[in-house]
Amino acid sequence: MEKNNILEQMQNMTIDLNSKALIEKAEKDGVETMYKRKLGYKVQCGFGLQGVCCRNCGMGPCRISAKTPRGLCGADEHTIVGRNYARMCAGGAAAHSDHARDITHTLGLTTPGGAYQVAEPEKLKEFAQFMGVDPEGKDIYELAHEVSEVCLMEFGKPHGVSKLLARAPKVRQDIWKEYGIEPRAIDREIATVMHSTHIGCCADIDALVHMAFRCSMADGWAGSMIGTMLSDILFGTPKPVHTEANLNVLDGNNVNIILHGHEPTLSEMIVLASELPEMQDLAKEVGADGITLSGICCTGNELTMRHGIKIAGDFHQQELAIITGAVEAMIVDVQCIFPALAEVATHYHTKFITTSPKAQITGSTYMEFHEETALEDAKTIVREAILNFKNRDASKVMVPELKSEAMVGYAEEAIVGQLNNVVNTQIDDMNTLKPLIDVLASGVIRGVVGVVGCNNARTPSNYNHLTIMKELIKNDYLVVTTGCGASAAAKNGLMLKENAAKYAGKGLATVCQLVDIPPVIHLGSCVDNSRILNICSLVANALDMDIADLPVAGCAPEWMSEKAIAIGTYVVGSGIETFLGVMPPVTGSSRAVEILCGSIKDKVGACFHVNEDAEALAQDIMACIEAKRPHFEELYQEKVLNKRVSGELASLY
Amino acid sequence: MEKNNILEQMQNMTIDLNSKALIEKAEKDGVETMYKRKLGYKVQCGFGLQGVCCRNCGMGPCRISAKTPRGLCGADEHTIVGRNYARMCAGGAAAHSDHARDITHTLGLTTPGGAYQVAEPEKLKEFAQFMGVDPEGKDIYELAHEVSEVCLMEFGKPHGVSKLLARAPKVRQDIWKEYGIEPRAIDREIATVMHSTHIGCCADIDALVHMAFRCSMADGWAGSMIGTMLSDILFGTPKPVHTEANLNVLDGNNVNIILHGHEPTLSEMIVLASELPEMQDLAKEVGADGITLSGICCTGNELTMRHGIKIAGDFHQQELAIITGAVEAMIVDVQCIFPALAEVATHYHTKFITTSPKAQITGSTYMEFHEETALEDAKTIVREAILNFKNRDASKVMVPELKSEAMVGYAEEAIVGQLNNVVNTQIDDMNTLKPLIDVLASGVIRGVVGVVGCNNARTPSNYNHLTIMKELIKNDYLVVTTGCGASAAAKNGLMLKENAAKYAGKGLATVCQLVDIPPVIHLGSCVDNSRILNICSLVANALDMDIADLPVAGCAPEWMSEKAIAIGTYVVGSGIETFLGVMPPVTGSSRAVEILCGSIKDKVGACFHVNEDAEALAQDIMACIEAKRPHFEELYQEKVLNKRVSGELASLY
Repeated sequence: MEKNNILEQMQNMTIDLNSKALIEKAEKDGVETMYKRKLGYKVQCGFGLQGVCCRNCGMGPCRISAKTPRGLCGADEHTIVGRNYARMCAGGAAAHSDHARDITHTLGLTTPGGAYQVAEPEKLKEFAQFMGVDPEGKDIYELAHEVSEVCLMEFGKPHGVSKLLARAPKVRQDIWKEYGIEPRAIDREIATVMHSTHIGCCADIDALVHMAFRCSMADGWAGSMIGTMLSDILFGTPKPVHTEANLNVLDGNNVNIILHGHEPTLSEMIVLASELPEMQDLAKEVGADGITLSGICCTGNELTMRHGIKIAGDFHQQELAIITGAVEAMIVDVQCIFPALAEVATHYHTKFITTSPKAQITGSTYMEFHEETALEDAKTIVREAILNFKNRDASKVMVPELKSEAMVGYAEEAIVGQLNNVVNTQIDDMNTLKPLIDVLASGVIRGVVGVVGCNNARTPSNYNHLTIMKELIKNDYLVVTTGCGASAAAKNGLMLKENAAKYAGKGLATVCQLVDIPPVIHLGSCVDNSRILNICSLVANALDMDIADLPVAGCAPEWMSEKAIAIGTYVVGSGIETFLGVMPPVTGSSRAVEILCGSIKDKVGACFHVNEDAEALAQDIMACIEAKRPHFEELYQEKVLNKRVSGELASLY
Repeated sequence: MEKNNILEQMQNMTIDLNSKALIEKAEKDGVETMYKRKLGYKVQCGFGLQGVCCRNCGMGPCRISAKTPRGLCGADEHTIVGRNYARMCAGGAAAHSDHARDITHTLGLTTPGGAYQVAEPEKLKEFAQFMGVDPEGKDIYELAHEVSEVCLMEFGKPHGVSKLLARAPKVRQDIWKEYGIEPRAIDREIATVMHSTHIGCCADIDALVHMAFRCSMADGWAGSMIGTMLSDILFGTPKPVHTEANLNVLDGNNVNIILHGHEPTLSEMIVLASELPEMQDLAKEVGADGITLSGICCTGNELTMRHGIKIAGDFHQQELAIITGAVEAMIVDVQCIFPALAEVATHYHTKFITTSPKAQITGSTYMEFHEETALEDAKTIVREAILNFKNRDASKVMVPELKSEAMVGYAEEAIVGQLNNVVNTQIDDMNTLKPLIDVLASGVIRGVVGVVGCNNARTPSNYNHLTIMKELIKNDYLVVTTGCGASAAAKNGLMLKENAAKYAGKGLATVCQLVDIPPVIHLGSCVDNSRILNICSLVANALDMDIADLPVAGCAPEWMSEKAIAIGTYVVGSGIETFLGVMPPVTGSSRAVEILCGSIKDKVGACFHVNEDAEALAQDIMACIEAKRPHFEELYQEKVLNKRVSGELASLY
């Protein structure tokens, strides 16, 4: 293969122009990136891609083919695919929930004036009440610690199901009870999946799918929801804020610190530490103008939505960020961190700093972070970054040209409030939902689609996200987004209110202008997909409908992680039709495909839809929502308009 | 391949003569068995065998080769092998612990005169005290329910480490604290491993091994130990009892019911139900002489050790049992159940009855078993089996000729007590340990080896087990065994006291004769490996030594399941050198092999040893123990003999 040809092939794997430029720099610098490795993987294992490879015991590996239609134990393709799928859900649920566990422990460490404090006392009180803790007469920190303990029990309680299911409409809760997917303790669901997928346990695709759903529900309706709620209580409910996105946010003569990973417990402390005068002074001492923090992946989302901190890039840009040569430190905690960063960093002055005992990486600088000594630890880490500024080699620096502006940080309160032109109204006042419902019911907005999730090397980076988002907003579907989907939108101007007229259809553009929102709304990190569940529940409750009745859909155009599979599964389990742009490893089992992309709908009111052609997937989403609209409008007529006349819903309208 | 050649090849895959006969019958009957499937798997996937295939995200699968030395994320062979190994430990720990959870819930359901009762009130009180529950003045059932709740918290408690670690010698506990592998809540350790092995988390082989150890410790020193303890409390501490083993235990004109799986909660109820006069009468009504229960896998072990119920066979004989044509029902719960049984059963009249929502199997008769309605459910199932007797087709029946007698059911109390010629003495009287210590210290018995675990299609069934056990006892090593290792020993006369002189060396034979024990001692099912930890702790505590000081070893000659990997890992973690007869999928990482088979010893005082040649493995075990003996004897001199003179250990000697 000719050299130029190789470069071109790599550049064709992303549509991000900054990325293309840095891929070229990487080649010149002799640095291997994911794009280069992808070229080496010409053929991926067909058994793995189809999900028919079993490594769950030491007699194997076994894999299904015409010559070997069953594993040694007799497991067929349905059993093997089902077990692998269930374990993916367990991995995803474990990741989100273990993150949430840390947040929950952190709530238990809050002290007045301490590193971690209660930022949202009212939200805490409201949530305490919901969780069965009486806030009456309690000191707010006493209450925080009590809520922490109660929430920790959601991970390990021996009896009962998730308390947070009660946030869903009653009719939805009944569906879960009927199908038997009300999750018990979060960790128990993960352990049970691991048990049932052990050799000689579950060998029935229906039962395996059932377990995968129950476990994923523990992610969405327990782990992630707790993570989001307590993050808001600890660090503040996000409010709409201006930011910038893409690698040009790296600042020429500043100490550039990139935060990458997922848990705000670390990144919030880095923010605090970097703002301290002693750190600002130190930065000047070493010859920098100041300190620029920016974020990658979900840490980027958490930081930007609460502080407007700039988004450096997404999952596929983590190596490229270092390749700019302008990064003093990349500080990471858990999840979605390429082990390759260690090697990439050796080519530049960048310190690659790992901080979590859960995610140590060979070749990194390991500086363990403890919530108990959070600010001190953060200061030590930031100091390390600042002192590294002197090692920057100007000849190796190339910060690419592009960045985009964006409005980010729409929590439930902001979305609903903004539509009502009253930012930050408490949602418990149901009146605030009326404008959102009105524009949906009237069809001015045809539906709401959550376009979320990762980047996947099996699709050109960002291509599916942008293709689908643009097509949807052009056709008057409001898009809400999280995770690396959100980064893609931010980097490309879709979160700019001023761009609504340019990209959105007439209906959506009008709404955007009237209520001052962008056509693609930033909802946060990947645990924040639970915000989507919350908003859907609020709307469905207000309308006395099931979530499955609403003209909404979920989409993960470039999903890559087990977390994304767990999310997709709980979103389907919540009654929301879910569209994937990359085929999960289930095609080896016709039954698995039939169930997940079909008959599961009989159980939960929704199913998966897969189309690896992004344009076609966008059409599929819109067709699906349009097919839902008549029923929705009919229900709306029956449940709201008629009752409004009769005064029954007077409190709402 | 010629037909005879195929048969011969299959027959060469087992050394069990009954199995050979039934493999021939299977061929005649046109039934596919594991042995036939194994022939189809000429070449197993080399990537999987070496552990270098990663399917933990949707960008993959990736696999390490010369052309692709890193996965797309940059994970190298060490990261991939480490993650796969850690997930195997999580799967194994989940299986044992979820079993223990069910037992724990069952303790909470005990009622005086109910299906489940407290069989061992004294053991309950002692254990309650150990777990911090004051038994004083409490009704025994009140106490049982309280202990159940306290134990359930070991699965999910938000704070602290396993309470059961305190059973180990103090010096061992310090080693665990130092290395950081004291397990927190059981389910949390499983969830944390799943999280840390998610894409973008842990990518350091040392850290991954560390996690795998902590998770496995939650199996041995929490889940399994609770399972064993509470099973004894519920169903009685096993006492030495006579039994028979191998497929000839199937009874010609009786209703043959085989119990297969793991949890005694089901099988104990089937025993109760089948002994009811109404069931006995029904059996006569349908033309049978009576009902014969027999067991396979660990359910077989649980039943034989408490009731002397016969052992039909081991993991590799589950299909062959049905192929006898003489089995009315095979009743299963969880773990190690071939999905193939559904297909095999269609060739005969056998009802293949699944009972657990955790392990439904396509094609089986699903009769869900609930602990709350245990006896009723058991009666329904037994009735189903009896009524199936009429469908037995005599022309298809062939019960093979061989069986062997055995003495089984040596719990900790029995082993220690029997050596002291005082069966069933409470072990808290430390005097009872003296005879065991004396024969070990004097070298009459050179050491004690736990030979445990599964059958694996990668070795001829039972060959490794028997080769190693025979070699060990011939050389005066006492063997204790559990699981399918125990079945192999029982089927081959090694658990017969009368055979001690025939198989054992002079020293061991003398001890066997003096204290009336067989040379291979039956310790129970696979969760009962925790009994080995207990005995080692008792002896080490009495001698004021670490477990790693004792002349003992663990061996899994034909391991196959993730459970076995978890067991091996916690046994190593407990300071016991562990020998495997089948290579685990870790050879793709030189670092993983170096750590697991070497440097981990610096952390925990023991490591893995692998040798796929059974004769050589037996030599390795003996060499290892002999190398330990001088240090042990020296310590014994220092700690016991000298102190005996000084009177310090007078209470012991």
